[in-house]
Amino acid sequence: MAEGVFITFEGIDGVGKSTQAVHLCSVLESLGHLTLHTREPGGTRIGAEIRRILLDPSLQELQPQTEILLYAADRAQHAAQVIQPALADGRIVVCERFIDSSLAYQGFGLGWDRAAIARINSWAVNGLAPRLTIYLDQEPQHALKRAGQDRIEQRTLAYYQRVRSGFLQMAREDSARYVVVDAGGTIAEVSQRILDTVQRRLTQ
Amino acid sequence: MAEGVFITFEGIDGVGKSTQAVHLCSVLESLGHLTLHTREPGGTRIGAEIRRILLDPSLQELQPQTEILLYAADRAQHAAQVIQPALADGRIVVCERFIDSSLAYQGFGLGWDRAAIARINSWAVNGLAPRLTIYLDQEPQHALKRAGQDRIEQRTLAYYQRVRSGFLQMAREDSARYVVVDAGGTIAEVSQRILDTVQRRLTQ
Repeated sequence: MAEGVFITFEGIDGVGKSTQAVHLCSVLESLGHLTLHTREPGGTRIGAEIRRILLDPSLQELQPQTEILLYAADRAQHAAQVIQPALADGRIVVCERFIDSSLAYQGFGLGWDRAAIARINSWAVNGLAPRLTIYLDQEPQHALKRAGQDRIEQRTLAYYQRVRSGFLQMAREDSARYVVVDAGGTIAEVSQRILDTVQRRLTQ
Repeated sequence: MAEGVFITFEGIDGVGKSTQAVHLCSVLESLGHLTLHTREPGGTRIGAEIRRILLDPSLQELQPQTEILLYAADRAQHAAQVIQPALADGRIVVCERFIDSSLAYQGFGLGWDRAAIARINSWAVNGLAPRLTIYLDQEPQHALKRAGQDRIEQRTLAYYQRVRSGFLQMAREDSARYVVVDAGGTIAEVSQRILDTVQRRLTQ
């Protein structure tokens, strides 16, 4: 069905996913590929409305199941309306965050039901899965500083460390799909690592 | 855990669920019970935001999975924030629409994946299920006229007939929980039928 290639970027906030996704797309375009750069949550009009609910600081009463279902709803819309059509069109789709983010943040980070998150999300996107997932890895302290958080509470740091451990565990368990890229160094250095990886993995 | 009694009203639009739910609560209150009257979708602040997305006529691109997940998200929030606390408080909770509405409208009516709707919603509400479901039954032609729809397209009518058949099938398959009440006649006549049923079922 899908003839394009689905690539996802994962990693904690501030690690450089957007910069690197844009850069990868521009290099791939210069090599003659058609690309689509997109992100979750909020990659569609409906997703933007859902994202508004998820990020509204006044809605503190948001329940775990509600949050999991809203992320899955955003993803269902994004997969059907944006990702699948672009893949059918033969494009390389580069998406910031996908199901792994829900597993890492809500599952590993907050301790919510990982099996349910995986099951609901897989159903939401009709089983769509990335061919390649680039996990940009960095110590949470460094990434969060880059994301503009100068003072990080110990509890927050412990949470992000669980998120990072979760990503690294998923990478180990699904090494055919995942690649861990060191996010340290200059933007150009990280870009080069990513490009090497993409070329090696996608020409296998 | 829950010490109260959870009663749901189901039925197609215009069949009189709101009127009868309000009336049942007032009779139960007069008999000395504490009640809570609520409805889906939109029974919470977060649910009202979700409902706004579901009912926005400009968002025509809403996908089946997205719609199912948004209804389930609304329900998760409603169950955890409104229904469960009221049941724990010993109240009789009278709720217009619950999981059966998703099964009837999206499942039977639109032909979407009923097993998935049941599974996702049951997870969303931690397995919460009504002790009694009152299905107000009426020919769609009559109910829809009462809901203000004078001219009903054949396709719309066929859809509501599938929804009605779905409710009747669920009622047959779960007769311990369901009761089918004829919604024809005056408001007082229907109220009396409901009250007889509730008293018979809840004192068994």
